[in-house]
Amino acid sequence: FSCSCSITANALHLQIDELVCEKRRKMGFPSTQKSVLRPHVPPRWQHWLKQSRESWLRWPELPRRASHDDWCHDGTFHEAVTGVLLMAQLFSIMPVCGILAKDPRKLRFSYVSGRAFYAYFCATGIGFMATMALYFFVSKRYNFQKMVTAFFYTYNLYAMFRFGQLAKRWPALMAKWTRIDQTLPPQKDEFERATLGYRIKLCSILVMTLSLSEHLLSIVAAVHYSNNCPAVHDPYEAFFKSNFAFLYYYFRYSALRGFLTKFFNVICNFMWSYVDLFVIVISMGLSHSFRRINAFLFQHKREQFWGEQRQKFRNVCDLVTTVDDHISLITMLSISNNLFFICVQILNSMNSRPTFVHTVYFWFNLVILIGRTLAVAMFAAEVNDESKRPIEVLRTIPRSGWCLEAKRFAEEVTTDTVALTGMKFFSMTRQLVLNVTGAIITYETCVD
Amino acid sequence: FSCSCSITANALHLQIDELVCEKRRKMGFPSTQKSVLRPHVPPRWQHWLKQSRESWLRWPELPRRASHDDWCHDGTFHEAVTGVLLMAQLFSIMPVCGILAKDPRKLRFSYVSGRAFYAYFCATGIGFMATMALYFFVSKRYNFQKMVTAFFYTYNLYAMFRFGQLAKRWPALMAKWTRIDQTLPPQKDEFERATLGYRIKLCSILVMTLSLSEHLLSIVAAVHYSNNCPAVHDPYEAFFKSNFAFLYYYFRYSALRGFLTKFFNVICNFMWSYVDLFVIVISMGLSHSFRRINAFLFQHKREQFWGEQRQKFRNVCDLVTTVDDHISLITMLSISNNLFFICVQILNSMNSRPTFVHTVYFWFNLVILIGRTLAVAMFAAEVNDESKRPIEVLRTIPRSGWCLEAKRFAEEVTTDTVALTGMKFFSMTRQLVLNVTGAIITYETCVD
Amino acid sequence: FSCSCSITANALHLQIDELVCEKRRKMGFPSTQKSVLRPHVPPRWQHWLKQSRESWLRWPELPRRASHDDWCHDGTFHEAVTGVLLMAQLFSIMPVCGILAKDPRKLRFSYVSGRAFYAYFCATGIGFMATMALYFFVSKRYNFQKMVTAFFYTYNLYAMFRFGQLAKRWPALMAKWTRIDQTLPPQKDEFERATLGYRIKLCSILVMTLSLSEHLLSIVAAVHYSNNCPAVHDPYEAFFKSNFAFLYYYFRYSALRGFLTKFFNVICNFMWSYVDLFVIVISMGLSHSFRRINAFLFQHKREQFWGEQRQKFRNVCDLVTTVDDHISLITMLSISNNLFFICVQILNSMNSRPTFVHTVYFWFNLVILIGRTLAVAMFAAEVNDESKRPIEVLRTIPRSGWCLEAKRFAEEVTTDTVALTGMKFFSMTRQLVLNVTGAIITYETCVD
Amino acid sequence: FSCSCSITANALHLQIDELVCEKRRKMGFPSTQKSVLRPHVPPRWQHWLKQSRESWLRWPELPRRASHDDWCHDGTFHEAVTGVLLMAQLFSIMPVCGILAKDPRKLRFSYVSGRAFYAYFCATGIGFMATMALYFFVSKRYNFQKMVTAFFYTYNLYAMFRFGQLAKRWPALMAKWTRIDQTLPPQKDEFERATLGYRIKLCSILVMTLSLSEHLLSIVAAVHYSNNCPAVHDPYEAFFKSNFAFLYYYFRYSALRGFLTKFFNVICNFMWSYVDLFVIVISMGLSHSFRRINAFLFQHKREQFWGEQRQKFRNVCDLVTTVDDHISLITMLSISNNLFFICVQILNSMNSRPTFVHTVYFWFNLVILIGRTLAVAMFAAEVNDESKRPIEVLRTIPRSGWCLEAKRFAEEVTTDTVALTGMKFFSMTRQLVLNVTGAIITYETCVD
Repeated sequence: FSCSCSITANALHLQIDELVCEKRRKMGFPSTQKSVLRPHVPPRWQHWLKQSRESWLRWPELPRRASHDDWCHDGTFHEAVTGVLLMAQLFSIMPVCGILAKDPRKLRFSYVSGRAFYAYFCATGIGFMATMALYFFVSKRYNFQKMVTAFFYTYNLYAMFRFGQLAKRWPALMAKWTRIDQTLPPQKDEFERATLGYRIKLCSILVMTLSLSEHLLSIVAAVHYSNNCPAVHDPYEAFFKSNFAFLYYYFRYSALRGFLTKFFNVICNFMWSYVDLFVIVISMGLSHSFRRINAFLFQHKREQFWGEQRQKFRNVCDLVTTVDDHISLITMLSISNNLFFICVQILNSMNSRPTFVHTVYFWFNLVILIGRTLAVAMFAAEVNDESKRPIEVLRTIPRSGWCLEAKRFAEEVTTDTVALTGMKFFSMTRQLVLNVTGAIITYETCVD
Repeated sequence: FSCSCSITANALHLQIDELVCEKRRKMGFPSTQKSVLRPHVPPRWQHWLKQSRESWLRWPELPRRASHDDWCHDGTFHEAVTGVLLMAQLFSIMPVCGILAKDPRKLRFSYVSGRAFYAYFCATGIGFMATMALYFFVSKRYNFQKMVTAFFYTYNLYAMFRFGQLAKRWPALMAKWTRIDQTLPPQKDEFERATLGYRIKLCSILVMTLSLSEHLLSIVAAVHYSNNCPAVHDPYEAFFKSNFAFLYYYFRYSALRGFLTKFFNVICNFMWSYVDLFVIVISMGLSHSFRRINAFLFQHKREQFWGEQRQKFRNVCDLVTTVDDHISLITMLSISNNLFFICVQILNSMNSRPTFVHTVYFWFNLVILIGRTLAVAMFAAEVNDESKRPIEVLRTIPRSGWCLEAKRFAEEVTTDTVALTGMKFFSMTRQLVLNVTGAIITYETCVD
Repeated sequence: FSCSCSITANALHLQIDELVCEKRRKMGFPSTQKSVLRPHVPPRWQHWLKQSRESWLRWPELPRRASHDDWCHDGTFHEAVTGVLLMAQLFSIMPVCGILAKDPRKLRFSYVSGRAFYAYFCATGIGFMATMALYFFVSKRYNFQKMVTAFFYTYNLYAMFRFGQLAKRWPALMAKWTRIDQTLPPQKDEFERATLGYRIKLCSILVMTLSLSEHLLSIVAAVHYSNNCPAVHDPYEAFFKSNFAFLYYYFRYSALRGFLTKFFNVICNFMWSYVDLFVIVISMGLSHSFRRINAFLFQHKREQFWGEQRQKFRNVCDLVTTVDDHISLITMLSISNNLFFICVQILNSMNSRPTFVHTVYFWFNLVILIGRTLAVAMFAAEVNDESKRPIEVLRTIPRSGWCLEAKRFAEEVTTDTVALTGMKFFSMTRQLVLNVTGAIITYETCVD
Repeated sequence: FSCSCSITANALHLQIDELVCEKRRKMGFPSTQKSVLRPHVPPRWQHWLKQSRESWLRWPELPRRASHDDWCHDGTFHEAVTGVLLMAQLFSIMPVCGILAKDPRKLRFSYVSGRAFYAYFCATGIGFMATMALYFFVSKRYNFQKMVTAFFYTYNLYAMFRFGQLAKRWPALMAKWTRIDQTLPPQKDEFERATLGYRIKLCSILVMTLSLSEHLLSIVAAVHYSNNCPAVHDPYEAFFKSNFAFLYYYFRYSALRGFLTKFFNVICNFMWSYVDLFVIVISMGLSHSFRRINAFLFQHKREQFWGEQRQKFRNVCDLVTTVDDHISLITMLSISNNLFFICVQILNSMNSRPTFVHTVYFWFNLVILIGRTLAVAMFAAEVNDESKRPIEVLRTIPRSGWCLEAKRFAEEVTTDTVALTGMKFFSMTRQLVLNVTGAIITYETCVD
């Protein structure tokens, strides 16, 4: 333990300087020393070519046989989040390479990788659909439902762009996160290290299954309805024409077009849920870091201990701020989009539904929407809750153990608000959950 | 005093460890030492049999003659709350054994006691009624009044379940409460020790009398109305058929069925008031603990005194947190249920009432509802108010007496929010009373 | 100065004990020492007789010639508020004797003084009118305007009762206030001592003139309207019958009855404005105390100075709390009554007015109402603002002068909320003014 | 550096006394020493004559050739704001002389300068138009649109008056600002010194271009519409008669009158945008001061350093308070006016627009309005954000470097709210932006 302690002290010492230096940069002041977080890659043409050759023309490696090591968890967030990112990449979101590697330093972002090109393709498709939906909305005298459709595609296109931006900064962010994770109190056994990964996987599967079933139900409702239209004989054509009227009003239908349309639509639907899931997963990771500190605090109470713990706590607070700088826009998107669609659905609740399937779909959709919104808010609020926990231990320190650093620790915990935010406008706390619920109920009362 | 002081010091020392250890468990970390709060009962079959034989087959003891000791108060919350719990058990709520014993260690919960079986029976009945009311609501095209009925039974069933859960943890909770009560500054005389008990009894009788008169008035209104129906000759049958339409639409009426229906309905009505009363009583107990500390603080101002007082204050704060962990869901139920029914009544206020009795009943009911909601909020807010009181003494400490522990005490009192909460979403403070009143007025304005 | 300083130190020392002792009493704990604030008058029959003979049968003294001393100001609040109280007593409010004496110890309250009997008479009259208005409202099918009339008289009756209660405690309160005033930094010259009195007088005259003109305008509008009624020939009778329909519907009109009706009505109108004025005057007095401390703080910056100042500041904070305990219900009455009548007037704004005089009266009334509400809120908020001012000096203390007591002072100023409250539910701060304005605007938007 | 350091120390020492002395004056206490901020000008008749001769009869100097010095930036706010003030003076706002001088001590305000007379002229014109618009509104039965017109001119007249008041205090304010600017950490190079000026210029041009295009569009829409009126043949006359009906309903049209009307109207339109721009520019300047301190903090971390930094930070906080005392009314005007017009436009959104140009103009106007409101709120919130930044450095101070002054610094940063305010009723923070957005959305929902 003595060895790791000296390393930790060293790491701590380094981190303070680095932290200040990074903050300077963030605030827009010219930095006096070179950043160590970004790889020193001279952006020359030859290099780009070489990089593209490496990342694009190389065939994917054959999956090698899994060794014992692969099943061992090291308990980092990078490792725990692998599955969620992989799933996202299937739907062309966040095209960062090397997410399967154990070492976060192998992560890298490239504009010319296969994943990037896949993302470009999808973005183009969704961009086209968003444009058409907007045009259809404007030219057709501002119908409210058309506005919602246009909003849906524009929103997803923008979310895709945000995730692309995030992908560029993901390697540096993960490097920082892993570094801070390693200074945290060690996790005892394999089981404890695997907990975070299991929780994230479970939550992802739950959210995605619900989204999938909701999407399938929407298809069932649409098919059920479109079949009633006698003018079009091909059931597929009828389905597509009624669901993507903003496209097939201007273009002719073909099977390929239909497939592509549905493909991009599926990606949009995935993205829509993924934005929420992403905020939840990040919140889980940050809460977990705080929980590790808290667990350690509740076990140990020695002298000269609080200064070190305060530094660790400070590191995680700083991590929260850094992560929040990166994803606060995505958080905002998630919350505002959910609230918007809940309002739309509540407005729709006054219309009569044509069939029973539509009724079921409508209520299922509304419940899923509200549930997902509350889930995002609750998981994000947990970060704030966990960051307040150390006060419970600090309050029990007896007179003899009370020292300057404990005092500073207590002051920081009580004074600072450590939480994910929606573009710094609001903090994701338990209070917010109540306010959001209240706003929905008020809106519901007003509309009815 | 010297003797009790050393015991107290010892107890304080023990409590800090225990408190931290308990918090660890609460946060979900594996505890390193065995819990001392739960009895070490190996859950074996023989033991269950033995326990059930002891608690079930044994006849209730004859009430022995009251001795002088029985009329002496020891001033604990456990003793003060006896009457209220006894009343609740008459209505099958919170089936914990040994509530009449002076010693809280004799409290125990058993799944196979007579009280438990009584509770099972009532829960089954209410569950059946809730199911029927829900089915009636769903099959009859979503009438609003039917929804309220279904909500009423479902709510009470859930409240019963929550009280059942609480009953399991009640012995440990009371043990903790009594232990903390004993470390508090001693109460001078018999009169002071009896105060809490008298206040609780007075409040219980008041709340219950009002609830009872409201229930009787509702019966009068219903009878008055149901007698107008000429199709049914038996007045009882008419009454039951009009009041429990969700049952007698599907089943035939018989006298026994009528009796059972009314019995479960009475229990539900009792439960409905009891949820509020319970929150009020718990709040009274917690406020009383703070008041004992405050009274002592205002009397004594010696050196080296603040550290000890701070520890006592901290213990009660911790008690508030523990109690809140157990009953925050019940608090939430109480507040949300009351607000829901106030809104329902305000909505109903626009309908015309058939008879004068209905008009009287309607306004009486509304006043009772609002009064009860405010009472719950005010009594719970008192806990928060009392926890802020020590600052008044701390602010008057002269320069010479100001020490580190006094400073920590002042910081804790000003910074921490010690209050009962509704599932941690909102704290029960005076501010909340204002907000709730404002919300009701706003809703009333919107509806009118 | 040295002499007054030692007295002050002594007074400070005494005050801390007294303050704690008083707080104990307020919290309901039995006090260990006798209260010194209430005069030790054994309430025996002989004494009552003697007292009544003294206060009631004695003729008012001839006003003696004013000496130089009478025009000298000693700068106490008791002196400054004399005029306002005298005016109130003309209208039978707050029947406390000795308000003209320079020495607040000569203040006393008696149930059998002439002023008390005058108050009993007026209270009976207003009580009768309130009863009739309520009966008229209930028996005439709940017309909204009738409800407002009933509310008006009931409100004023209750306010009269509150002022009666306050009158009993007024001597003790003024004694405390004067005692704290005397420990405050001395005021330099005659002019500075007169400031508070002049400000209070100016404000009273302004508020009362506006109220009077509003009342006169209401009479003009009523006369204008009642003259259109051809059935009643006597213009006075027509006026009284249309304005006091709730009385003359049941009773016959006579000149004496008409006079008494109008007399009580005038008292109610006066009371209605006086409640607001009273809160304003009290706020002015409290703000003034803070201002004296602040002025002294900004002039002097010596060592060992902050502890003493902190004690003086604490005394005034304690005075605010004491005063608030006495008048918080009156503050609540003032704010809630004003908001209620503003809402009534906004509701009325949709009705058409019969004549131009009515239109003018309506808008004049609305502006006065809103202006008075804002005035009350602003003056009361000034107490809070002034209590925050010391921080500006404390922040400029250089490193060398920073000491423990300065630190405690700064902490108290930033942490504690010192303000008048509406029954502890809301603090009268600048924030409240904004909220109240927002609520009025929202209500106005909703109604329109 | 040593030299400037001693000067700084001296300046700091002087400033504390001055700051306290100034605060005393602000609080209305008689100041013991003469103010040094206002020039000691005995207001005698001869002096006035002389001053007027100097400022009024003297011809403007020929622009001398620019030297190298003129293009050098000294990085003061006075210099950065020159362009914006010059533009304002073209439109007769804030007639202070000497704004082109590098030295803020050359600034002076005179009642008899040419700029003042220009301002008197414009104020008279706008005052006349405001009177006519008000009269038109009152005499024409309270039409809502006419009320908006009257409000527009009254608002601009009042804003002009406020800027006139501000102009009197501008020289003293700039002197203080420059003095505090000089004690701040020095800016490294020419580029850094020019940043603030460039940012302000860019923002001004952007805001003004948008306002101009909006105004032009409004003219286009008006012309388009007025040409449809066949009764009036002269297109100018038709335009003026339809746009300034409140004038030409009472007066005859002539070309000169038309020109003057449009001239004053243009000034009003400019003023309307300028109020917002002014708040933005002031906010930029204050944020910049905080940024300079923050940049320095993030670079240096020596012992005995925090006390000095705290003093600098305190100076800027004091500057914010001083500036806020001067412009808080203008901030209030800006926010309230914008909200009022947004509400008016949202109300108008339900009316149908006669032509496509009107539709474009309407939406362009609404977007500009909302954008400008958010811009004002965001830029003003930045002041508050920057004032919270030092905490990030303070939290990273290791145990060895933690000292009393660092502690005080941290306490001040976390406790005090340093922000521009709207007449002290609300602080311009990020929270406000959210609330304002929420209020607009709520209003929009209510109206629709």
